[in-house]
Amino acid sequence: MATTSADRIAIVNAQIVTVDKTATVIDNGTIVVKHDGSIGKIGAGRIDHDATEVVDAGGAIVMPGLINAHTHLGMTLFRGLGDDMSLEAFLARLMPAEIRVLDYDAVHSGTELAALESLLGGITTSLDMYYMPDAALKVAESSRMRLQTGTTFLESDGPEPMKWPDRLAWVSKWLEQPRDNMGSTGWVAPHSTYLLGEDHLRVIAELAARYEARVHVHAAETVGEMKLVADRHGGRTPIQVLRDTGLLGRAVLAHGVHLTDDDIKLIADASASVVHCPASNFKLASGIARLIDLQEAGVNIALGTDGPASGNDIDLWIAIRLAGYMQKTMAANPEVLPARDLVRMATINGAKALQLDHVIGSLEVGKRADLIMLDPDSPSLTPNFDPHTTIATSVTRADVVNVMIDGEFVVRDRECLTIDKQQVVRKVAALGKRVLASVDGD
Amino acid sequence: MATTSADRIAIVNAQIVTVDKTATVIDNGTIVVKHDGSIGKIGAGRIDHDATEVVDAGGAIVMPGLINAHTHLGMTLFRGLGDDMSLEAFLARLMPAEIRVLDYDAVHSGTELAALESLLGGITTSLDMYYMPDAALKVAESSRMRLQTGTTFLESDGPEPMKWPDRLAWVSKWLEQPRDNMGSTGWVAPHSTYLLGEDHLRVIAELAARYEARVHVHAAETVGEMKLVADRHGGRTPIQVLRDTGLLGRAVLAHGVHLTDDDIKLIADASASVVHCPASNFKLASGIARLIDLQEAGVNIALGTDGPASGNDIDLWIAIRLAGYMQKTMAANPEVLPARDLVRMATINGAKALQLDHVIGSLEVGKRADLIMLDPDSPSLTPNFDPHTTIATSVTRADVVNVMIDGEFVVRDRECLTIDKQQVVRKVAALGKRVLASVDGD
Repeated sequence: MATTSADRIAIVNAQIVTVDKTATVIDNGTIVVKHDGSIGKIGAGRIDHDATEVVDAGGAIVMPGLINAHTHLGMTLFRGLGDDMSLEAFLARLMPAEIRVLDYDAVHSGTELAALESLLGGITTSLDMYYMPDAALKVAESSRMRLQTGTTFLESDGPEPMKWPDRLAWVSKWLEQPRDNMGSTGWVAPHSTYLLGEDHLRVIAELAARYEARVHVHAAETVGEMKLVADRHGGRTPIQVLRDTGLLGRAVLAHGVHLTDDDIKLIADASASVVHCPASNFKLASGIARLIDLQEAGVNIALGTDGPASGNDIDLWIAIRLAGYMQKTMAANPEVLPARDLVRMATINGAKALQLDHVIGSLEVGKRADLIMLDPDSPSLTPNFDPHTTIATSVTRADVVNVMIDGEFVVRDRECLTIDKQQVVRKVAALGKRVLASVDGD
Repeated sequence: MATTSADRIAIVNAQIVTVDKTATVIDNGTIVVKHDGSIGKIGAGRIDHDATEVVDAGGAIVMPGLINAHTHLGMTLFRGLGDDMSLEAFLARLMPAEIRVLDYDAVHSGTELAALESLLGGITTSLDMYYMPDAALKVAESSRMRLQTGTTFLESDGPEPMKWPDRLAWVSKWLEQPRDNMGSTGWVAPHSTYLLGEDHLRVIAELAARYEARVHVHAAETVGEMKLVADRHGGRTPIQVLRDTGLLGRAVLAHGVHLTDDDIKLIADASASVVHCPASNFKLASGIARLIDLQEAGVNIALGTDGPASGNDIDLWIAIRLAGYMQKTMAANPEVLPARDLVRMATINGAKALQLDHVIGSLEVGKRADLIMLDPDSPSLTPNFDPHTTIATSVTRADVVNVMIDGEFVVRDRECLTIDKQQVVRKVAALGKRVLASVDGD
């Protein structure tokens, strides 16, 4: 669009929770968004701009879009399929269903529903790990949700299905293509150290090094996993195996529940991030991550929903609530993990895990305009003595009114502008019947 | 209104989660609501009726209204006032603010905001404990939220303010009046065994006996309380003190976190109920209630939000999530407290605690039509393999579309019909400034 103005939109009368280094909150603030999708200006009161669209926040909280640093979006198809059971029992029910049901269209539909759920709930960026990542990238393109994803490695052929040598060739080709508009490199996603042997892990590490790809891996999720890994890898922990195979450096470690003191040191030394997924960990009774110890060791902790068949939703507000309340309870100390830390975990720390904190994760001049506007008239957010506290203890997805990505609204007045809600909900409900049929008689 | 028809409204095409004794779910169900506000018929498919209004549920879940079995509604005024601190530190900050700020109008406004929050979130009945209960009853009348409440007893004069003999006279008069349209007797609410001595507790028990009033009391919430009670009451536990003073029989015990095996037996023998308030308990790091042991002992467990200054919201969906996930995690067993139990805790068990289970708490012919209709197009509730699981792990207040009390809609298309949202939100936001001013310099 040809235009002579530099500014696209000005958001005024906002309580801006910037999530910058000093956790600045700007009351009665203005954010000016430029036509290139970046934040041009930010500050208190009136600010000069030449935008034609002015949006009044009504005094409500405006904050960075949430970053879901570990998920399997396409798994909405299997949401609630295996509840009130362990991870192992759940996987035994799930994996055959995946092989029977998943094709490109099914992954596309499942991911589109997930993108809808994410956007309506204020999640603007997701780090995904699932089969047929091209289908998810297609959804990202049409929905405009920021998606980071890589190819998943399992020893079994999986639903894709692909033998190991073919998989390597495909991955190499995949990693040669640019994957987003933020100049970042691709991802590889070895599933875990319990489903892959050392030789395979080393090959993946070499691939990652060759293409400067980032690593996304499950690690130390359950007690069962710890035993499997010890048996398979000569008594080592998942973290030790990742270090020894060259996969730990700056890796994104999903879960990180069962960590030794030595593991925590290794993670800190490798500048890896831990993605805490409380809804999944607590629902499956996998355990409680040592967040306070990780914090003390200087490890970057982000938040994730895990797949919506473990969780059972894609809701980072719930994750914030569960993370904070569980840590306070286990420490018998209500002062640990205060609201500001929780807000950072759901935003800037996710950006750090994805190595995108120079672009997203906080509201600062020059960064992309990825932001959420909350409901100024929500009874649940009234009064609002401290917006960090309000976010950490009261906000739910009911309170998300507008969501902007790259300077354009993707949710406006609680309606998603980029996805046809009724169509995708009906499609996935119909696919759900196929899923149920595929497990009948199990 | 003169009418010749018996039926007021028929809700069709619903997935009815009845919460009856066998947890019946009726797919493609119909509920016929009579003009007297009761459920006339309920069943699968088409049912004969002469209602002029037919509401299509779109295949979505229809379930009983939620019952909040322990709260302090007026405390919305202080929401977020004391976060990331212990119950004791929070009370030290709160109680002077209450005395400075609370009057009839302030309690009325705080409670009206709470009623709005409750109704929008699907809560149709609340057991309240707060000062100036007449103000809350006024809100209940205008908003149509079912309210059960009693007079609070503290040793200090409190914000009301009233000396002990005056308080007794006032309470006697108060208990002589009928308090609801369900034929139930009144309530007395001795605050706790740490803020009241044995003599006072015995007097309250005598009052309760004289008026057949039910008892609502805090018990065994924190480790600090256990010490205070042991010091004050000769080494006894709060439950032992309640038994000895005649207050335990059929009492509603808020929290019940720190219970001995003997306490659990006493509670079971007295047919008292425990109201689990997970958001409050976990945020304040008060501890984790022994729900599985209570269940095994046959104790009725209901759910509460506690006051929105402890919680920090009035959201029983969050309470369901926190209760289930915490118990599974602590038991290291994902099978404990399955979805059906959690749904019962938020509905029929609350009705049992309030001794109103013959009237509300489940969707059955003859009971009052208090019900919630969820969003058929919510991505977060799709697919929906098992509605109990969906309720326990995916529903939030974002998904509540319509709410009916006594056969009339109080929320329709997410708008509350009985409370002016903007007006009360602005009023409480303004009162919030008075609250902040009252603690400045503390």
